[in-house]
Amino acid sequence: MPWTRHHILSLADFSPAEYDIVLQTASSFREVLSRRTKKVPTLQGQVVANLFFESSTRTRSSFELAAKRLSADTLNFAPGTSSLSKGETILDTAKTYLAMGTDMMVIRHKEAGVPQAIAAEMDRLGVRVGVLNAGDGQHEHPSQALLDLFTICTLLDTDNPQLSLLKGKKVAIVGDILHSRVARSNIWSLTASGAEVHLAAPATLLPKEFSDYVKEEPLKEESTSPSSPVVALDRRLFIHWSLAPALQNADFVMTLRLQKERMTSYLLPSLREYHQQFGITRDRLKLCHPEVKVLHPGPVNRGVEISSDLMDDPQFSLISQQVTSGVAVRMALLYLMGGGKV
Amino acid sequence: MPWTRHHILSLADFSPAEYDIVLQTASSFREVLSRRTKKVPTLQGQVVANLFFESSTRTRSSFELAAKRLSADTLNFAPGTSSLSKGETILDTAKTYLAMGTDMMVIRHKEAGVPQAIAAEMDRLGVRVGVLNAGDGQHEHPSQALLDLFTICTLLDTDNPQLSLLKGKKVAIVGDILHSRVARSNIWSLTASGAEVHLAAPATLLPKEFSDYVKEEPLKEESTSPSSPVVALDRRLFIHWSLAPALQNADFVMTLRLQKERMTSYLLPSLREYHQQFGITRDRLKLCHPEVKVLHPGPVNRGVEISSDLMDDPQFSLISQQVTSGVAVRMALLYLMGGGKV
Amino acid sequence: MPWTRHHILSLADFSPAEYDIVLQTASSFREVLSRRTKKVPTLQGQVVANLFFESSTRTRSSFELAAKRLSADTLNFAPGTSSLSKGETILDTAKTYLAMGTDMMVIRHKEAGVPQAIAAEMDRLGVRVGVLNAGDGQHEHPSQALLDLFTICTLLDTDNPQLSLLKGKKVAIVGDILHSRVARSNIWSLTASGAEVHLAAPATLLPKEFSDYVKEEPLKEESTSPSSPVVALDRRLFIHWSLAPALQNADFVMTLRLQKERMTSYLLPSLREYHQQFGITRDRLKLCHPEVKVLHPGPVNRGVEISSDLMDDPQFSLISQQVTSGVAVRMALLYLMGGGKV
Repeated sequence: MPWTRHHILSLADFSPAEYDIVLQTASSFREVLSRRTKKVPTLQGQVVANLFFESSTRTRSSFELAAKRLSADTLNFAPGTSSLSKGETILDTAKTYLAMGTDMMVIRHKEAGVPQAIAAEMDRLGVRVGVLNAGDGQHEHPSQALLDLFTICTLLDTDNPQLSLLKGKKVAIVGDILHSRVARSNIWSLTASGAEVHLAAPATLLPKEFSDYVKEEPLKEESTSPSSPVVALDRRLFIHWSLAPALQNADFVMTLRLQKERMTSYLLPSLREYHQQFGITRDRLKLCHPEVKVLHPGPVNRGVEISSDLMDDPQFSLISQQVTSGVAVRMALLYLMGGGKV
Repeated sequence: MPWTRHHILSLADFSPAEYDIVLQTASSFREVLSRRTKKVPTLQGQVVANLFFESSTRTRSSFELAAKRLSADTLNFAPGTSSLSKGETILDTAKTYLAMGTDMMVIRHKEAGVPQAIAAEMDRLGVRVGVLNAGDGQHEHPSQALLDLFTICTLLDTDNPQLSLLKGKKVAIVGDILHSRVARSNIWSLTASGAEVHLAAPATLLPKEFSDYVKEEPLKEESTSPSSPVVALDRRLFIHWSLAPALQNADFVMTLRLQKERMTSYLLPSLREYHQQFGITRDRLKLCHPEVKVLHPGPVNRGVEISSDLMDDPQFSLISQQVTSGVAVRMALLYLMGGGKV
Repeated sequence: MPWTRHHILSLADFSPAEYDIVLQTASSFREVLSRRTKKVPTLQGQVVANLFFESSTRTRSSFELAAKRLSADTLNFAPGTSSLSKGETILDTAKTYLAMGTDMMVIRHKEAGVPQAIAAEMDRLGVRVGVLNAGDGQHEHPSQALLDLFTICTLLDTDNPQLSLLKGKKVAIVGDILHSRVARSNIWSLTASGAEVHLAAPATLLPKEFSDYVKEEPLKEESTSPSSPVVALDRRLFIHWSLAPALQNADFVMTLRLQKERMTSYLLPSLREYHQQFGITRDRLKLCHPEVKVLHPGPVNRGVEISSDLMDDPQFSLISQQVTSGVAVRMALLYLMGGGKV
């Protein structure tokens, strides 16, 4: 099956075949990255513009490095010093980068829908410029979910990572799911794989209505008693307001970043209390499958989402592998958007 | 005629032959940019330092991309984090970049004359480092005027853009001419071409004394009556305090960016009123030549200098072409400053 | 002797052979930089991350250019927009860059010991990633001291710069020695060379206890009278609270940057008074050897540490050569850390 998508905006409509193409392409770039000279000439002479309207060092560096290793030239947009502060619209900024000769745009914005709007405008103009959503508000962050998927699948089969490897595995996603674009994208990819996905968070950070997110499936409530609030969505997505049922026999635990500003909006009593109830520790992992692995998209608040010693323990933590996977997966995405042959 | 200028600071003393060399060189780079691999090895191993003491994303990105497409390495200077805040003089900053091995400097500063001072210092030191003025205060912005010129001449003759194509054309420059370095540079190039240049702005943004700007020509007042204030400077430069006479039969309308901070200095009653009197709309263009084209250096305040629908209408708007021309023209300027053969 | 060090954190334990390897390697890169095409493919495909937690334009540009001229890709970390403000620890930031595939890290931080802590963590993880200290608090700035050494030794023998050339020379270091990481690193390299090093500063910026810095030598007080406070440390390091004895017959005068914020901490009466007592002027240089040269790490406060005319006089000033040496020396350091053959 050939790759036909030239924007990567959301995983909501990704097909299993598309997940597998990304996994296989990333796998071949992972091999490139293990060589001493880690560059390939694939995108030589092409321009990747990193339009990070919301500032970020980590994700921007990962995309920048991915682009450079494909031999592309990169342009970095710095919102603080930009035309935006001079009254230009975001679409006009994007069209300016288009007119300069940008071939691909990697876009992060604090409001949901901005990458989609820019992609629609590129299509309306009839230009073949790919747009990649590097995080839009609380909506989606597809490259993060794809690198999480790649990290897990590579662990399960180093040489042949495939979506179907996750079938029947239990994955817990723990933390501020309400505000997390990472969680939203991961729910799409993990449920598509046939994994059982268990969300766990305080009720303020995971209202029951959140289950509406996976719209195509009928909501089947198994229990709504306050002491054990479990909501099941078909056989794959479960919602918990406490940690233990989510961890029970889990193969993978994905922790989410807790943004401290949530404290000020009265959604959380205290960081200490959050850690006591939802923080992942070595002790709590005893509930899980013995070979359980823990992921976190970073940056980590040590001792809040995850205990410090656990984060550093290679027996459990995949955090460093996630970062490494990020470069390979982003190379794959830029390569595929650029029309690379599979 | 060979190119002899190694600084590009002002268009005041540009000769017609020099304009034509820039246009022809940019035309050949425009052809390079239409290829899939848009890079040439011309400046390989050379260093272009972008010293933007006044921050800018748009112009800096355009120069950075031009330099990269010539295979130069680029250094970006960020004023916020620089030695300037530690008491170093601007000349010492420039000399530091010189000593590091910079071959060309692209300089923007909020005060007029800074690029000229740096160029003079380079000459005094006997080094062959080219300095390009990327905007100095309200003085000049030569690369913007050259890309405007290239955009227009390429429209008039795609394969052979020349200064003389503009002879006899009527060009209106509309907006905050008083504070515009873009207008100042454009007045030099357009009058040099033999075009008829008509400036239109509220009297507060275009005082009559402004006509002194073109110093070599005798001032011949045709009328000073408040109701129809038209001042003619030889046969080429006309000043209007209202829009209609400037637009009458115009071939090109150059709109200028209105800096909103002008409002606070009591030079304008309101943006709405400005748009009513000087904003360019589809309706007002009916005064112009039927094939009139509209330019704007960007970033645009939609609905202020120009109506939003007109800005997006490819029948009238050259705004996107200006941005594209920018990269080709800046490649040409860096190439010529670097001693490229013509 | 082969090069074995893969971190460059301090000059305290540098051996004479190591100094000579750096000088010779820098000398060969100095030759490369004199060619028209100043690039070599040495580090092609490798990634140098500039992690400047304390912002700097000058030093970062110098390292960035050094890396690019070795054909490395560079990543720049901008603290203002980084994960640090989101609660990530510095070690975690460094490990993120490691996991992305960084081969070398150049680190500046306002607190002493940060590069050392990161280097120790890399070693603990068993990865071969080199860490270079680009300035840690008031502790050390080894690449600055090495470029000062290279500048002096190249002056003494252009083709064959060696540590031993400095033997018996008198070097004065003047200014805010108490707070200067540049001074601390220079004291190690200069005393290692066999030069006589004379420190001169107001007593508030050079307490007598400072002589403890060179710990391996017994303290021998020659005089402690207030009018002529001279303290000798073996035959090589001398401390003065006035300028004249330090300048007497000096071959080299290293001036240090005076940070103006010292004024507010009551360490200095006024900049004018500082200049009167410790500023280097043409007149004061008459005390020195007739061929004396003056150095300054920059950025310079003209008229404070050094008079403006003297700074610009090529007969005396090596300031511009220091900046040029900086690129060659940093190329040498990255090359050696990268395992280059000597």
